[in-house]
Amino acid sequence: MENRVINAAILGAGTVGGGVYKLAQAMEEDIFHKTGARLVIKKMLVRNVNKERKGIPSEILTDDWNSIINDPEIDIIVELMGGITPAKKYVIEALNAGKQVVTANKDLLAEYGEEVMSAAEKSGNDLQFEAAVAGAIPIIRPLKQSMAGNHITEVMGIVNGTTNYILTKMTEKGMDYADALAEATELGYAEADPTADVEGYDAGRKIAIMASIAFNSRVTFSQVYTEGITKISADDIRYAKEFGYVIKLLGVARNVDGQIEVKVHPMLIDENHPLATVKDAFNAVFVHGDAMDDAMFMGRGAGEMPTASAVMGDIIDVMRDIVCDCCGRIGCSCYKKLYVKKIEETKSKFFLRIKAKDKTGVLANIASVLGNNDVSIAQVVQKRRNSGVAELVIITDEVEEKNFNDAMAIFEGMSVISEIAGVIRVH
Amino acid sequence: MENRVINAAILGAGTVGGGVYKLAQAMEEDIFHKTGARLVIKKMLVRNVNKERKGIPSEILTDDWNSIINDPEIDIIVELMGGITPAKKYVIEALNAGKQVVTANKDLLAEYGEEVMSAAEKSGNDLQFEAAVAGAIPIIRPLKQSMAGNHITEVMGIVNGTTNYILTKMTEKGMDYADALAEATELGYAEADPTADVEGYDAGRKIAIMASIAFNSRVTFSQVYTEGITKISADDIRYAKEFGYVIKLLGVARNVDGQIEVKVHPMLIDENHPLATVKDAFNAVFVHGDAMDDAMFMGRGAGEMPTASAVMGDIIDVMRDIVCDCCGRIGCSCYKKLYVKKIEETKSKFFLRIKAKDKTGVLANIASVLGNNDVSIAQVVQKRRNSGVAELVIITDEVEEKNFNDAMAIFEGMSVISEIAGVIRVH
Repeated sequence: MENRVINAAILGAGTVGGGVYKLAQAMEEDIFHKTGARLVIKKMLVRNVNKERKGIPSEILTDDWNSIINDPEIDIIVELMGGITPAKKYVIEALNAGKQVVTANKDLLAEYGEEVMSAAEKSGNDLQFEAAVAGAIPIIRPLKQSMAGNHITEVMGIVNGTTNYILTKMTEKGMDYADALAEATELGYAEADPTADVEGYDAGRKIAIMASIAFNSRVTFSQVYTEGITKISADDIRYAKEFGYVIKLLGVARNVDGQIEVKVHPMLIDENHPLATVKDAFNAVFVHGDAMDDAMFMGRGAGEMPTASAVMGDIIDVMRDIVCDCCGRIGCSCYKKLYVKKIEETKSKFFLRIKAKDKTGVLANIASVLGNNDVSIAQVVQKRRNSGVAELVIITDEVEEKNFNDAMAIFEGMSVISEIAGVIRVH
Repeated sequence: MENRVINAAILGAGTVGGGVYKLAQAMEEDIFHKTGARLVIKKMLVRNVNKERKGIPSEILTDDWNSIINDPEIDIIVELMGGITPAKKYVIEALNAGKQVVTANKDLLAEYGEEVMSAAEKSGNDLQFEAAVAGAIPIIRPLKQSMAGNHITEVMGIVNGTTNYILTKMTEKGMDYADALAEATELGYAEADPTADVEGYDAGRKIAIMASIAFNSRVTFSQVYTEGITKISADDIRYAKEFGYVIKLLGVARNVDGQIEVKVHPMLIDENHPLATVKDAFNAVFVHGDAMDDAMFMGRGAGEMPTASAVMGDIIDVMRDIVCDCCGRIGCSCYKKLYVKKIEETKSKFFLRIKAKDKTGVLANIASVLGNNDVSIAQVVQKRRNSGVAELVIITDEVEEKNFNDAMAIFEGMSVISEIAGVIRVH
């Protein structure tokens, strides 16, 4: 046992791959004590072996996947390439070749989770992916293990740091969306093409993965309703604040009477809700279980070392499984087949900001359209703006999304309404 | 496999024991799908078998430990009696008899952790105890597994619901300690004898357990400095608020250059710190690791079903180990022997509230005593009270506790100082 060595290969030597390599060195003795084996990063798969990579010895770099998959000494494949191609092929080949896999690839799991999990199941190998959701925050393992004695009914999270940074700046500094995005881009919080973040796709992949585990039923990214933050204005944030709310981009998954609702959209949450205090690039996941009640997990959702930390936690766990000869100990947990609702089939409360002609009877008009469509008003504020424009801000009770949409369609055709300036769901 | 049954015995049929029995029924099918085996609660050890226990069939009740320990069909012992005697004896006998153990017993682990962990280690069995710290909040497993790829440098937590409830009421309603305690007692948040809670002993046991795991070095309860909340006044809370702080009872454990600091005391924390927002009977644990940066875990720290949920998570994990034949997979993680500092050897910032005679030169006097003892002042506010009394509120920079105590000893003997009304550490 003293000299047992477990070899791993890392696919990708980017930010996170470099971080994992560094941690493997820095934690060498601790890993040995925790697992009873020594971790050696034997190879790192890169596109260009000639590019110098700080802190990584060039002799472990290779551009040849076959030299990794065919190396019987390599027990663990750590996939940090991201994307579907060739990551999916490599992960499945690795599992089929009897190797254990650790991945941080949310795209792969949210889109092809069933395929890769079933490859792990069939081969009896580990497929661990803590880093795929919410970076350094332990959430996959708590959902699969610590909270396994619950029926989980809700998972709700701020799982995209870019949009949380933008919304925080809009809230704290009264900035417009465009200015806040520009600042986020400049500081490196937003990518050159921010689409996946600001449209909610990134968060959508993460909530699909969490929903699958929480409800023990497969949810794929294509089943997630996504709506981004590009239409949120400083006005929306200001009015929300008047009502005691903060606006966050939330991934929300619920098990409502055995049917799954899963979506990403901006949402007003009470300023006293634990998620409301999660600022800047931090992530947080809120979970409700029938026995445990509420819990929240907060931490760094991205970044070199935080993400590497989550990957290393998985590697250590896999090493323990190898040493105890119990790989595949916790496999796919999707043993149910629950229906995933379409957004029109769900219910929400809405925050609605309308600009209308400032004349007698407008509020009555609007209220009666809402009433006719079973949309009940919980709170309303009317303000006179310049040049004959009244601004109405309404918060509804919980309504069928279908009914709400019907009312909006009628508003679109009403000449007294000049603009439906904001429509945001309310927690 | 279809018909594999794993039998467990629960020691204790109190609140949590009853909750675990209920969950075992409610989660029956899920447990089977998650583990591949059926969980049967075969026996429950009670003092009085004739007492009726709602929802628990009387035929599984027994007052005979021998009928449990000698039953070869029982694989898992779930110890929920609390206290040292006879829990310690039973846990060690169970491990020696080849049974797996789940316990929620913080006293046992904080005082005899080494003994019980080594019994688990020698017998190669599981000893799991997620419920012993912070109720439903997953913290033991994250520390041992998810965050294993970090050197953890700080664990800081609100891990006692009773005191957090009292401090919350004192903060929100301006109540005195005695009134808030009375309310907590009335509502069932405080026990008839609240000593263990309000003096910080309960929190001290929990921080000892977390420190041991986080720093991989055994910390026992006797090494934890504890100071309770009984001396906190509504005035302290009000002044703290003026400086932008909230007062919480915190368990704090730090690894400072390879030496451990571990203590429980009231503390001023910035009102924007995530722990400041944790209210009422909620618990939360804040962790800092060198790779992961900051993370926080919040949830229910006590109560029938939240605690039962944590116990059930452990039972399910043990069942997986039994099915995969890998019990003892994660054993004691104390592979270091770090020095645990005495409180006098640590550094803190202090909030200091002094009542003094309202005459010229008093502030200069006080400031020079502090200065002579290397206590540097960060902030100070002086207020004139009625009848010639001035109240001074000082926040110091970080100082050696020894030096601070020396300054306090001098203040005690100064005739211009009428009262050292408040001394509270500052984060």
